[in-house]
Amino acid sequence: MEYYSVNGAYHLTLGGIDAVALAEKYGTPLYVMEEDVVRAAMRAYRQSMERFYGGNGLVCYASKAFCCKEIYRIAAAEGLGADVVSGGEIYTAAKAGFPMAKAVFHGNNKTREELRMALALGVGRIVVDNFEELKTLAALASENGVRPDILLRVTPGIEAHTHKFIMTGQNDSKFGFILETGEAMEAARQAIGTLAVRLTGVHVHIGSQIHEAAPFIQAAERMVRFMADVRAETGYTLTDLNLGGGFGIRYTGEDDPVPYAAYMRDVSGAVRQACGQLNFPVPFILMEPGRSIVGEAGTTLYTVGSVKKIPGIRTYVSVDGGMGDNPRYILYGSKYEFLLANRADEAPAGEVTVAGKCCESGDLLGENVPLPEAKPGDILAVRCTGAYNYSMASCYNRNPIPPVVMVRDGEDRVIVKGMTYEQIVENDI
Amino acid sequence: MEYYSVNGAYHLTLGGIDAVALAEKYGTPLYVMEEDVVRAAMRAYRQSMERFYGGNGLVCYASKAFCCKEIYRIAAAEGLGADVVSGGEIYTAAKAGFPMAKAVFHGNNKTREELRMALALGVGRIVVDNFEELKTLAALASENGVRPDILLRVTPGIEAHTHKFIMTGQNDSKFGFILETGEAMEAARQAIGTLAVRLTGVHVHIGSQIHEAAPFIQAAERMVRFMADVRAETGYTLTDLNLGGGFGIRYTGEDDPVPYAAYMRDVSGAVRQACGQLNFPVPFILMEPGRSIVGEAGTTLYTVGSVKKIPGIRTYVSVDGGMGDNPRYILYGSKYEFLLANRADEAPAGEVTVAGKCCESGDLLGENVPLPEAKPGDILAVRCTGAYNYSMASCYNRNPIPPVVMVRDGEDRVIVKGMTYEQIVENDI
Repeated sequence: MEYYSVNGAYHLTLGGIDAVALAEKYGTPLYVMEEDVVRAAMRAYRQSMERFYGGNGLVCYASKAFCCKEIYRIAAAEGLGADVVSGGEIYTAAKAGFPMAKAVFHGNNKTREELRMALALGVGRIVVDNFEELKTLAALASENGVRPDILLRVTPGIEAHTHKFIMTGQNDSKFGFILETGEAMEAARQAIGTLAVRLTGVHVHIGSQIHEAAPFIQAAERMVRFMADVRAETGYTLTDLNLGGGFGIRYTGEDDPVPYAAYMRDVSGAVRQACGQLNFPVPFILMEPGRSIVGEAGTTLYTVGSVKKIPGIRTYVSVDGGMGDNPRYILYGSKYEFLLANRADEAPAGEVTVAGKCCESGDLLGENVPLPEAKPGDILAVRCTGAYNYSMASCYNRNPIPPVVMVRDGEDRVIVKGMTYEQIVENDI
Repeated sequence: MEYYSVNGAYHLTLGGIDAVALAEKYGTPLYVMEEDVVRAAMRAYRQSMERFYGGNGLVCYASKAFCCKEIYRIAAAEGLGADVVSGGEIYTAAKAGFPMAKAVFHGNNKTREELRMALALGVGRIVVDNFEELKTLAALASENGVRPDILLRVTPGIEAHTHKFIMTGQNDSKFGFILETGEAMEAARQAIGTLAVRLTGVHVHIGSQIHEAAPFIQAAERMVRFMADVRAETGYTLTDLNLGGGFGIRYTGEDDPVPYAAYMRDVSGAVRQACGQLNFPVPFILMEPGRSIVGEAGTTLYTVGSVKKIPGIRTYVSVDGGMGDNPRYILYGSKYEFLLANRADEAPAGEVTVAGKCCESGDLLGENVPLPEAKPGDILAVRCTGAYNYSMASCYNRNPIPPVVMVRDGEDRVIVKGMTYEQIVENDI
């Protein structure tokens, strides 16, 4: 996000609205989401699906990146499916009126209760992660008199270049059936033989925030080959190929992600070529972008409190939020871009450390980040906080989780209300 | 926690109750807190305060470690004060009927609203962190017609041996006034001259989970010297010395903490000696233990779901919780002890990786931990999860935050209700 809009008062604008006015109206910290950015990303994926796969596929929004009722409504309106990973996400989607047949349910350890919920609410596809789950799901499906469509999560043995915590394609993973060892083929055999479920395909996810097309292409090729191998060994033709997500975004100038369209062009080419070589019908393609749909749409607004200058060491700019509303810096050292929303035209005056208000030294939002001279009362904006900020938020220090406001064409509306102190003690006896 | 109790069925017992029965009654994941362990730790601190400081002090429970209404009631019943770090903690304490005069309010960036709340509810001591806050607090105090007792948070320039994220005594910290550069003395001068507040003393906190007495002794000596310097330079005698917290606990056999009593004996000796040398009256001592009061009292119970053996690599044992209810492993790589509550007599069969259920590769609770052969349905117990587990919990993946059950003498009672799916969508529009 190298570009942002500024109005005549030199204030940052979001969705055509003065960010300083938003901070005043709703208080800080405040999550702001730009609806146009979300919808544009959803459309870009859908259009690429039309263009490169002839529409023979479904883009599923990976809702763990940012989950609330309204985002499911928007995904549904844009014709997307949804990737859900828990009973809580299924519940939220269902409450939002999401068409559950377009939902795909993931997880390395889904509980029986969650599987029951998925069956009862008609989740369209369940991605089976391990042998135990295949048995459990078959038993629950029989009990419920339904025959769910399932995919198998396959671990392709690919190490994508990203943070260890969000790298999932390598063999050493809690997720999925390993391709290399024959485990995935054994899973396919067992699933085909399990009449209580209908095996429709395979799923692969190689990791998150990946900036190169090559590992995606490699994963897609391996999956097509595996589908052909399953046909050769069992005579059964799989029709769904779920390529997962993991497409990187530009948090700062250091990131250089592949544009979605180019990625989809290259991967679709590889899929078609592999299918041609193996004389395998081009499968129905599922994709699961999350971060790349909501990440760049989000901006968090804070009010600057204290500014502590330590001569010869550094300057701490403390804001009224922190690791509670954005745990990604303390978790992964994730980098963000910062600006002063009320003086958005000013050039950086130096580098500072942005600290949160939690009683914890590690509660920082960024170190050595360029910023104009900050003063108490300034509104600090952190860009690209739409993914894995609200969804990972905690009440650590009993700080309430901030509200989420959606902005578009000069209008703002709350889509998630801010937590109140009453709610913080609501479950305390 | 090298010892634990097992009943005739070879099940782990907590507070005299079969842990497997607790898991059945309340479901998993489940936080269990042993009330006797909490109260024993509170009493040990109080008794040491009596013995080594003649009762001239106050042990304040650092509630950010584990915060809910009931823990404030227990702290009050045991005669402790409380260290609070936010409006949410102040609100919770007040709702629990905690005597707010015994509360100490901390934070590097308290908001105006929080300071107003502290003044309105009569929080006994406010620890001022920076010059800006001193001005703001003075103005708010004047507006409210009250004159609060304040302490100054001093950064003593001590590097304690602990994790970088929880190390706070060094000069490069978002907290406090630096001793070395004269900033702390300047703060004392300004505070003494600010008639809207009453400066009563100083506060120092050198970090968390510290296993040696030496840095505590060093910090205490530096603070006494600083108090004497303030008297020499201004003629004003400070009476409160708040030594903070940070006392380590034994998470695993690798930890070797100093017993509280020995720590307090040594530190009190150092305080008295320094006072004697400087002819300074022995101050009123405040202490702020958090982790060492609740940490070892907590056990989290999970149900084992899938067990994934990857030949030549490792075995993943997946449970029905994870980084949502215990983010300390993904945050700090914190180590814990694991056992199977339903086969608590069995010796480890090898080393495994314990994984959570979140759709995130980094969602692990421990790697290479010894465990008996685990099977689906086993109840996995993680020891010493009383501190910074519930208080740091998130709903990531929209997993509900588990309930907290207090156990004692064969009786169990819910002290924090588990979150419901209804509550998860409660703020969604």
